[in-house]
Amino acid sequence: MPILVMKFGGTSVANLDRIARASKRVAREVANGYDVIVIVSAMSGKTNELVGWVGDTSPMYDAREYDAIVSSGENVTAGLMALRLQEMDIPARSWQGWQVPVKTTSAHSSARINEIPNDNIMEKFGEGMRVAVVAGFQGVSPEGRITTLGRGGSDTTAVAFAAAFEAERCDIYTDVDGVYTTDPRLTDKARKLDKIAFEEMLELASLGAKVLQTRSVELAMRYKVKLRVLSSFEEYDPEAGTMVCDEEDIMESKVVAGVAYQRDEAKMTLISVADRPGIASAIFTPLAEAGVNVDMIVQNISEEGRTDMTFSCPVDQVARAERAMAEAKDSGEINFHDLVADTDVAKISVVGIGMRSHTGIAAKMFDVLSAEGINIKVITTSEIKISVLIDRKYMELAVQALHDAFELEKA
Amino acid sequence: MPILVMKFGGTSVANLDRIARASKRVAREVANGYDVIVIVSAMSGKTNELVGWVGDTSPMYDAREYDAIVSSGENVTAGLMALRLQEMDIPARSWQGWQVPVKTTSAHSSARINEIPNDNIMEKFGEGMRVAVVAGFQGVSPEGRITTLGRGGSDTTAVAFAAAFEAERCDIYTDVDGVYTTDPRLTDKARKLDKIAFEEMLELASLGAKVLQTRSVELAMRYKVKLRVLSSFEEYDPEAGTMVCDEEDIMESKVVAGVAYQRDEAKMTLISVADRPGIASAIFTPLAEAGVNVDMIVQNISEEGRTDMTFSCPVDQVARAERAMAEAKDSGEINFHDLVADTDVAKISVVGIGMRSHTGIAAKMFDVLSAEGINIKVITTSEIKISVLIDRKYMELAVQALHDAFELEKA
Repeated sequence: MPILVMKFGGTSVANLDRIARASKRVAREVANGYDVIVIVSAMSGKTNELVGWVGDTSPMYDAREYDAIVSSGENVTAGLMALRLQEMDIPARSWQGWQVPVKTTSAHSSARINEIPNDNIMEKFGEGMRVAVVAGFQGVSPEGRITTLGRGGSDTTAVAFAAAFEAERCDIYTDVDGVYTTDPRLTDKARKLDKIAFEEMLELASLGAKVLQTRSVELAMRYKVKLRVLSSFEEYDPEAGTMVCDEEDIMESKVVAGVAYQRDEAKMTLISVADRPGIASAIFTPLAEAGVNVDMIVQNISEEGRTDMTFSCPVDQVARAERAMAEAKDSGEINFHDLVADTDVAKISVVGIGMRSHTGIAAKMFDVLSAEGINIKVITTSEIKISVLIDRKYMELAVQALHDAFELEKA
Repeated sequence: MPILVMKFGGTSVANLDRIARASKRVAREVANGYDVIVIVSAMSGKTNELVGWVGDTSPMYDAREYDAIVSSGENVTAGLMALRLQEMDIPARSWQGWQVPVKTTSAHSSARINEIPNDNIMEKFGEGMRVAVVAGFQGVSPEGRITTLGRGGSDTTAVAFAAAFEAERCDIYTDVDGVYTTDPRLTDKARKLDKIAFEEMLELASLGAKVLQTRSVELAMRYKVKLRVLSSFEEYDPEAGTMVCDEEDIMESKVVAGVAYQRDEAKMTLISVADRPGIASAIFTPLAEAGVNVDMIVQNISEEGRTDMTFSCPVDQVARAERAMAEAKDSGEINFHDLVADTDVAKISVVGIGMRSHTGIAAKMFDVLSAEGINIKVITTSEIKISVLIDRKYMELAVQALHDAFELEKA
């Protein structure tokens, strides 16, 4: 029988009623003829409670114990859903990560999956089991200790199972009904996309459209896993949600798929840096070591051996960045005149695989912003994305104007 | 280094403060020179919450899923205590049942421990680890699925580890400070025993002095594990609690160690049963199949081929017993005139290994009750115990009178 992977997030299994509701969706796919692998998160709130206990007990905790503790929530929901399915006369059983086993690296709290042997579960499918309910987010290290994949890791678990079992599709049930052209809270013209390419989804995910964990999209792209995002709170509809798939599976894609934003950015500029080979490394290595997530980087043309270096980072990391730069200056590793932080900026991006073959998207974007009187502070581009930093107060206006200009409300 | 097993029940690890307090006791034993194996229960209330979810999801649940779900509470406390100990600079780590592994039978929810290989943990002790924190109550079946040992199973886990690791002692920390000559709520003359023999503890445990799970005492007796019961809420005192040990380790034991009671008993009499070989089996087999826990059994002398058969059981099983007997009568398996239930009785027992070599204890017990005007309804005796059923309203009076008569308040 074909295999389907279905993943339910924390809000979709938040209590017994929701688990029952999710189980009905699983039952329907079983009736449709699938053998189903269900990946479950912990009941919403449970993981946070456990994480809180760990932090209160040991601020600099041993990640191995952290993993052993926080993984327990998924075990509970996996067992409960298996029981619920059995009550519906569907042969089902639960699996914890070490039982499959989901073999991971030893990088506790951010482990990567090395291998998922499929023989145990396939054997049970062969014996008539119809649903394997697997605790998401967890695995087991070569040393036999429990690992976790990092927050949101259940998406990655789901995609990895879909790859290992060559599933027909991987359905990610969540509390939104799909991927939108932009955040519907910013404009009621936002439209749900029926399909989106992996590359676009990656850009949107990393830009703050937190529907799917980035790693899970990367994994799906690498193994060509058809990924569908849909709501567990809507009525059943086989065409529901958004399909994340290969570019080739999208017949007629628009040039621009969506407009993304990140609200709380900061723009930092090192004024008059002594320019020399290796200066970028001398700046960004200490920033990385200080845990600053640098996003955009722009370097002006060097004049008379000195240049300005601008980068962006989340606004709550500005103090950390300032400290790292001051220390690097004190130690003589870098030399600059001043460090100026602008903490009132937001990032706006237009994303679309069609940009590869269409020119003029950047020009059109700048025109639209200019017509609204919005000043552009920094620009970066990639093959399928153009991003700008602007004053935060113009963020909503910019999103709405770009959404209109690229006619994203039209299918 | 000598090994000590310390077990903390649910109330002793009910929250982070209590876990910290328990960890201090562990730290003290580490300082005393022990390598320590700590067995933990789930935070009090957690297991009941999980059991409730299972029952609400699936009234006739799959015990394998039940075990996978309810065992998760112990994993959380084991990890938290390991972290707490690490914070105190004590090398510690947690172990889940399958990691040790605690090998059990496949009898889910009431599994028995087959074997606990000690090589994994001993290797870590050899490398400098000082405390292994083990999730109690759980193990792993030959099929690789999680099992549990039944409620209160963490006591059994603790004793099994003490046996497997040849521990110097197994300390059971609980919310009472030891084993008493009788329930202190019934008489303030009740005295804490410094020592009690395994056999006496077994009789007291099965008679309702619920300090230790009966199975754990049986196991300790078989493997000669020195067992100590003590409070986790008292100040540290190396002589605290009650030592449960071999008869030979008790220098000068009193003839009677304690007076036990069970409040909610029922006495049932089958009047005028047609007596024949095999009649007892014909009566008690259907009762056992109906889940009736028959305790005392007394058969009168048979006259003219008919006899009266009396037995006792918990009062809440009377309806079940009546149904089973009516069905057995209808099917012709047994024949009796009437079934009379007396639901207002309590059971009183005096227990002591000294009875083996002392006579006259039964006579003294009957005298004492008679002097108080208490009628004895049923008597049974074993080597180290005499039990009687009396009217429930006299229960406290009987316990007090017997406690006085056998001078149990005196050490």
